[in-house]
Amino acid sequence: MDYLDVVEQVQKAKLLSKKLAILDENKKNQLLEYMSQQLEQDCEKINAANKKDVDKAKKEGLSGAMIDRLTLDKNRILDMVEGVRKVALLEDPVKKTLKTYRSKNGLLIKKVSTPIGVIGMIYESRPNVTSDVAALCIKSGNVVILKGGKEAFFSNQAIVKSLHLALKRADVESGYIQMIEHTHRDVVDVMLKQVDSIDLIVPRGGTSLIQKVVKTSLIPILKHDKGLCHIYIDDSAKLDDARDITINAKCQRPGVCNALETLLVSEKIEASFLKDLVRDLQKKSVQIRACQKTLDLLQDESLFEAFEEDWETEYLDLILSIKIVENCDEAISHINKYGSGHSDAIITESSVNAEKFLSEVDSSTVYHNASTRFTDGEAFGMGAEIGISTNKLHARGPVGLEELTSYKYVVHGDGQVRE
Amino acid sequence: MDYLDVVEQVQKAKLLSKKLAILDENKKNQLLEYMSQQLEQDCEKINAANKKDVDKAKKEGLSGAMIDRLTLDKNRILDMVEGVRKVALLEDPVKKTLKTYRSKNGLLIKKVSTPIGVIGMIYESRPNVTSDVAALCIKSGNVVILKGGKEAFFSNQAIVKSLHLALKRADVESGYIQMIEHTHRDVVDVMLKQVDSIDLIVPRGGTSLIQKVVKTSLIPILKHDKGLCHIYIDDSAKLDDARDITINAKCQRPGVCNALETLLVSEKIEASFLKDLVRDLQKKSVQIRACQKTLDLLQDESLFEAFEEDWETEYLDLILSIKIVENCDEAISHINKYGSGHSDAIITESSVNAEKFLSEVDSSTVYHNASTRFTDGEAFGMGAEIGISTNKLHARGPVGLEELTSYKYVVHGDGQVRE
Repeated sequence: MDYLDVVEQVQKAKLLSKKLAILDENKKNQLLEYMSQQLEQDCEKINAANKKDVDKAKKEGLSGAMIDRLTLDKNRILDMVEGVRKVALLEDPVKKTLKTYRSKNGLLIKKVSTPIGVIGMIYESRPNVTSDVAALCIKSGNVVILKGGKEAFFSNQAIVKSLHLALKRADVESGYIQMIEHTHRDVVDVMLKQVDSIDLIVPRGGTSLIQKVVKTSLIPILKHDKGLCHIYIDDSAKLDDARDITINAKCQRPGVCNALETLLVSEKIEASFLKDLVRDLQKKSVQIRACQKTLDLLQDESLFEAFEEDWETEYLDLILSIKIVENCDEAISHINKYGSGHSDAIITESSVNAEKFLSEVDSSTVYHNASTRFTDGEAFGMGAEIGISTNKLHARGPVGLEELTSYKYVVHGDGQVRE
Repeated sequence: MDYLDVVEQVQKAKLLSKKLAILDENKKNQLLEYMSQQLEQDCEKINAANKKDVDKAKKEGLSGAMIDRLTLDKNRILDMVEGVRKVALLEDPVKKTLKTYRSKNGLLIKKVSTPIGVIGMIYESRPNVTSDVAALCIKSGNVVILKGGKEAFFSNQAIVKSLHLALKRADVESGYIQMIEHTHRDVVDVMLKQVDSIDLIVPRGGTSLIQKVVKTSLIPILKHDKGLCHIYIDDSAKLDDARDITINAKCQRPGVCNALETLLVSEKIEASFLKDLVRDLQKKSVQIRACQKTLDLLQDESLFEAFEEDWETEYLDLILSIKIVENCDEAISHINKYGSGHSDAIITESSVNAEKFLSEVDSSTVYHNASTRFTDGEAFGMGAEIGISTNKLHARGPVGLEELTSYKYVVHGDGQVRE
């Protein structure tokens, strides 16, 4: 199918983006307030639509975890309402002067933040993403094209309908927030070719979705890819901190991208510490996959052997691989080889090793004596986030309002010409 | 062909990039000084290699303009020498703290600039790009993979050989600057798939090269695309400035991306001004293609009629299309519809119209009372540039050292775990 209606839809979005880009801050905040109020008012309708999705998912035998991610109860909808309201309170990221200087020919040059234009969001399952992303895009002056998963179709449709009522009440174009209503996957291919209309694609979902988008898209991508995170316990670590941080990073919420997957331990750390740590982790139902040195050292039959593929695996589960390394250098090499460039931590009291690790580990976020679990927009004080970028271009780490902007140079002269 | 040697080459580049990323500023500057000295010393060898390329180009009947772009004489090589030396004097863009703050859980969060990693440069003709880009990449801590055009093969090879001698003299890895020695175009396809080894592709050349790269690359791109630039002469313009700026932007160097292509004139501007301006432009051999209103107004048989396709054409030549518009709004709409988002100017004494234009025209650089010809790294005080980005992501406008960096978050804690 050609999906010509979708091509037309995104072309219209591009035109509207010029209008949204210059919308006044107060108006945007009023709009967000209306969006929040309308979602609250439509709580039951959204709930009913969500029930249709959930019933269908159950019939189709989706996993319990997926159904949990899909389900919206009243509290989750109120969280969405609150989420939109919080975005209104954040600083406007647009029209900020990032730099001002005078060139040698007397031009006054200002670097000014602008919206990006049209953002295509391709995501799976969780319907709360719909209102979160719509709010962030409105505040940053970007038109958003939402393409959610078919499993959440009725929920997303009800949420967007509610948001459109708010746009109408604020007397602005309903096209500022758009949803692709087709559910066949082919429509995504069409979307990913609209280079003249869509400025940025943000894929958020499983590895297969990300890979498909990377392979197909002609449009720049900001990808929220996997998090294969490490903690390295250095010789001089405070052992209590090392234990607490490791347990926190692995167990507090194992299914998220900033959770710990591989623990690296200096060979100078005492065996008794490692033995206790393993026991503590096992008490919390963590399965341990250990390198040969660890197996030899601990002589514990409850441990599994770690293979090459373990160092490459994002478990997203209560599983931890452990490797004993010679020193900080080996830890850094291991992370740069096997890591996904997301979040990695060193636990040490040595400022030399800390500096080395923080400088040489090539990841979006590097920690000294803290849990990897902090990598997100909320914890970093950005208010809200659209995802965590594993890109190196444009934005790295949590993507909040500021990362949803571009910039332009605004140059004032008094008749200057080039010699 | 599989070009397995190229795959191996870029994998090696990725490993080396971790080493170059942490090279000390003084060492990088020494290296740049050596590169500059060696190029000067090898001037005759480079000249001889260039002669081979030029002779071949003449035999193959390349155009005079292309042969001019390809040719290196002694002065051009000395410009290259000077160019590399100037990069050494610029501020190091790496390890700069862009932001520091403390989160509510007491973490000290620093946003620190880092190199991007491995940059693949795909370019045509001008061999001076080879040393310019190599110098900018070394200074910003990025390994560069150079893929020049086959027409400049011997020149590029001689330049890279010279740079390798300098790297050797400085006792650093010669792999920091790499050249793809294959000349068949298929090797570019292989390069564009190495997502795990190359972090950024910078294509610089004609539209067909750019289009090919956009379509094929799985790697993020910073593209230097066309410049379809406009000047709008508003009702209240100082007419002398308007004339000087228009002539400068069109005639000073018509073959470059920031040259003027379409002139928009308010219908309130007197016919006598437009008549004089057209005569002045024609004296400078500019062919005028005018809209119907202009033709009716000027009644001048030497003018050509402008068609729809003229508004979409980057002439890169002594041709100018002229359109009379009703007001500033129509000018803005025209530019946002037909422009390439490069550089556009308004000439006006009205601050209201100036603000409107600067805010609403969606281009990398917008000017008030100055020539569009200023959009480049040198004029903007960046020292040197790798190109001018028409992307909205990562970097927009001139791409200098700062734009060749990414960032990471460096987080210091004292045992924090996530609640």
